[in-house]
Amino acid sequence: MKTISTAKSHGGIQGVYSHHSTANNCEMTFAVFVPPQAAERPCPVLWYLSGLTCNHSNVMDKGEYRAAAAEHGVIIVCPDTSPRGDDVADDPDDWQFGTGAGFYLDASEEPYAENYNMYSYVTKELPEIIASEFNADMSKQGIFGHSMGGHGALTIALKNPDRYTSVSAFAPIAEPSKADWSVGALEKYLGNDQSKWREYDTCSLLEDGHNLPEILVDQGAKDDHLVRLAPEALKAACEKAGVALTLNMREGYDHSYFFVSSFMASQIAWHGARLNG
Amino acid sequence: MKTISTAKSHGGIQGVYSHHSTANNCEMTFAVFVPPQAAERPCPVLWYLSGLTCNHSNVMDKGEYRAAAAEHGVIIVCPDTSPRGDDVADDPDDWQFGTGAGFYLDASEEPYAENYNMYSYVTKELPEIIASEFNADMSKQGIFGHSMGGHGALTIALKNPDRYTSVSAFAPIAEPSKADWSVGALEKYLGNDQSKWREYDTCSLLEDGHNLPEILVDQGAKDDHLVRLAPEALKAACEKAGVALTLNMREGYDHSYFFVSSFMASQIAWHGARLNG
Repeated sequence: MKTISTAKSHGGIQGVYSHHSTANNCEMTFAVFVPPQAAERPCPVLWYLSGLTCNHSNVMDKGEYRAAAAEHGVIIVCPDTSPRGDDVADDPDDWQFGTGAGFYLDASEEPYAENYNMYSYVTKELPEIIASEFNADMSKQGIFGHSMGGHGALTIALKNPDRYTSVSAFAPIAEPSKADWSVGALEKYLGNDQSKWREYDTCSLLEDGHNLPEILVDQGAKDDHLVRLAPEALKAACEKAGVALTLNMREGYDHSYFFVSSFMASQIAWHGARLNG
Repeated sequence: MKTISTAKSHGGIQGVYSHHSTANNCEMTFAVFVPPQAAERPCPVLWYLSGLTCNHSNVMDKGEYRAAAAEHGVIIVCPDTSPRGDDVADDPDDWQFGTGAGFYLDASEEPYAENYNMYSYVTKELPEIIASEFNADMSKQGIFGHSMGGHGALTIALKNPDRYTSVSAFAPIAEPSKADWSVGALEKYLGNDQSKWREYDTCSLLEDGHNLPEILVDQGAKDDHLVRLAPEALKAACEKAGVALTLNMREGYDHSYFFVSSFMASQIAWHGARLNG
């Protein structure tokens, strides 16, 4: 692991690091905020997964998570959203696919299978680095994210319910196998057999018997992407599966970080209560 | 005034606006956060002046001011740091002069006098727009800023002590007429006669009899620019002038927005107590 930068902030340390990823076959950059409590004891780890077009830095700059993370003593890990580099297959004209749009899956199709393995990266490779390089209590992990990252957080938690104590999302893409901005990517990464898409789709996973005790979601009521995000489908699927979903429709809020940052402190407090409880 | 964008955030509205500035002879962009309280009553105005290389958006993205502004019911106005545009004289290779480096003064030298009038812009032209376009109580104004913007806040307040109820700064350039990163700009904007620089230099203004009841400053103790910022000179000048300076040296903090955002809420609370008192 290489240290790109560190700066003291809100009593803790905001760092940016990079390493060669074997899952993605490229150099990957990620951000970690270590709260002041980590000087004295291992701290819980809260994973934040970002949305389309983002890398590790968007939420680091605009997410306003450090004050709450320092208050609740949680480490915040912010991975990139895809592999990157000259050797990584990409379609630079499509913001919904390729670089910045890894959709937190393991691709099966060529030429993407070699690099696009964000599911393995976020669930296996990066946790090992966090465990070895930071004062982290890996028995206490939570996960959340925004938009495509909300999709990542929910699908990853549904498939690894024993790993994550707490799960939430901001405006998650709840049903990517039916939404116009994700169908093209799923087809390229996973092929035409739509039965294989189900393990990367929150509503399908809930239908197929995966489960979580509770999920917290904040959703802007004025979000331009409301139809594609499908909060109503998420609500119906959670009801059917018996998942306690708290879906806060936030009047007047859009899809941007102006929305995310507004509810960051309350989501972190929610995770903190469960991770420190 | 043209509206470029608005978004709900922390219960208020974060907007970006532009207009043709007569002071600067160019189109100017600025950001305004209007707290929820402005729906019911005129709110105090807190001016935030940004540092070298910044425009209106750096603090809007990274400053973490909206939660505290909404809590204390203050409007935050974030002007740009200089005139901009193809017709504006500039030296694009010098980050300490020209675009992004207006130093909150009125230039007297050609070719800069036509556009570089940020002092008049911030103290006269933009306040008229804020007064007419927003639900602002212009009898209650505070001013603060970072680095070059801290210099702007202190010098502007010292020359207009009746206008601003509260004054603070993050890592201000306290003595620009003696610091290597500002002397060149002062020379180009104001000419060689250094007696004219004194009205744009906090320490000189204090020496020359300008005064304020109190000033709050947060300064990173690990700031790479500590010598150029001259907090010790500020301390000495305030002591001599009888100004109650609270100078918080913040252990381990640098010059970045990771530092600024860490003490944003406490500075806004300080202004809020005075503006709402």
